[in-house]
Amino acid sequence: MKIISKIVEMQKLSDKWRQEGESISFVPTMGSLHKGHLSLMEEGKKRGDRLIISIFVNPTQFGAGEDFKEYPHDFKRDSELAKGVGVDVIFSPSIPEMYPEGFQSFVAIDKLTKTLCGISRPHHFQGVTTVVAKLFNIVKPHLAFFGKKDFQQLVVIQRMVKDLNYDLEVIGLPIIREDDGLAMSSRNKYLSREERVTASSLNRSLILARKMYQEGIRNAREIEKKVEQIVGENGLIKIDYIRICDQENLLDIDRVNQKAQLAVAVNIGATRLIDNCELGEEK
Amino acid sequence: MKIISKIVEMQKLSDKWRQEGESISFVPTMGSLHKGHLSLMEEGKKRGDRLIISIFVNPTQFGAGEDFKEYPHDFKRDSELAKGVGVDVIFSPSIPEMYPEGFQSFVAIDKLTKTLCGISRPHHFQGVTTVVAKLFNIVKPHLAFFGKKDFQQLVVIQRMVKDLNYDLEVIGLPIIREDDGLAMSSRNKYLSREERVTASSLNRSLILARKMYQEGIRNAREIEKKVEQIVGENGLIKIDYIRICDQENLLDIDRVNQKAQLAVAVNIGATRLIDNCELGEEK
Repeated sequence: MKIISKIVEMQKLSDKWRQEGESISFVPTMGSLHKGHLSLMEEGKKRGDRLIISIFVNPTQFGAGEDFKEYPHDFKRDSELAKGVGVDVIFSPSIPEMYPEGFQSFVAIDKLTKTLCGISRPHHFQGVTTVVAKLFNIVKPHLAFFGKKDFQQLVVIQRMVKDLNYDLEVIGLPIIREDDGLAMSSRNKYLSREERVTASSLNRSLILARKMYQEGIRNAREIEKKVEQIVGENGLIKIDYIRICDQENLLDIDRVNQKAQLAVAVNIGATRLIDNCELGEEK
Repeated sequence: MKIISKIVEMQKLSDKWRQEGESISFVPTMGSLHKGHLSLMEEGKKRGDRLIISIFVNPTQFGAGEDFKEYPHDFKRDSELAKGVGVDVIFSPSIPEMYPEGFQSFVAIDKLTKTLCGISRPHHFQGVTTVVAKLFNIVKPHLAFFGKKDFQQLVVIQRMVKDLNYDLEVIGLPIIREDDGLAMSSRNKYLSREERVTASSLNRSLILARKMYQEGIRNAREIEKKVEQIVGENGLIKIDYIRICDQENLLDIDRVNQKAQLAVAVNIGATRLIDNCELGEEK
């Protein structure tokens, strides 16, 4: 396994592999790898000849007062995990390598980023799309893997790839959960024991919402209200949003259909957690 | 020579050529080809194994009330000229092919687009960078050629390529001029006979500015003032800006140095014309 920190070196190697007819799978990460990342990497390994992951805690996708400085990292542990999966390259650039002096370009997606997390994190998605656009130009993958835990991010990246004609396929993979149902996230580490116990109510509320749908309830507001009750009953959780929206355009829907997604964002203490599920199909 | 209108077909062909180890030169155009374009194409032919040009009048870089609808086009003549140079592919997509329903992404450059032409054409450069980013992802060139007539555009594209890590080289080539010095532009066709005669004062003013520099004058405002006199003496010409700026950051400079560029934009009747020259070196 190679560790590459220079953009030009990564581009040359990817070019070489492409010229040799090898397909490249790519998993962009901010490190602090957990089973969610590992599931992306395993799928990438299976579907491509070469597997590249990036580890880069991207400052531009954190807002003021967010957890950029606290974001957990353990490169040694991450690289051991990556090696275990059979990663060919960890691309791990420095911040000045990615954002040299004079940097002033950005990639933005309009409507899809103005809703859900985009409301409380107004610059977040522009940071994400800009760094992912850069990473795509550096890593030159055929396949790029993202987790569905960050559902809005996945939809936004898919839109970017389509709109800007990136010649690659974006693959979204299922949320990986802890035993009690909490969606895997690097931010789970921030939770105190009490908060951690409380956090499982997120997934419980999603399960109930799916049950309501399966029982024939189609009124989105009615389901959202029930979710709010469950999540909100513990005083530790502050709800950012609970929304049933269309899976493609992310707009609110009133009547739940096969293309409905339930998305939830909360703050538990200083920790922001998100989760989501399809309603139309049992998972 | 192939004419390709579908994005996927273009990407596949470029991929094939790249896999075969061939280098790709690319000249993006809005058609209405003139000797300026031809000089770019000839250089592209010389420096790459394959030469691709695009012909696409990009609606998103025209402002309200600008000349999108009038923009001249003659595909038959353009393709004959391209064939003459030895172009391998004209990529000529439709507007819905480039901007399908739901399109909502853009690429933008910050500071460099807030000055010069960016002031009177506030959305122009975002339209340019977005379409060029798309074209780079579609054509996948090793070398991309732009004329120095659109000096700010060249600087903006170079910034975009650097910031977003497009793995290609942007090459700026000298302005090609008519016999009387008027910079070649598709928009010159809009000029009446009287306007056309008047337009040559732009280049005359640049020549004088260079002469002032060579004579030792270093005060930028003094040179700008003289240029303004020459360009403004004919009532047909309405000046948008006359600015001596730094070639890299496009900011105003007071004292002219080796990195100074003089840039001029005017309206003659309904026609917008731009021109520019280096001051530090004789051309």
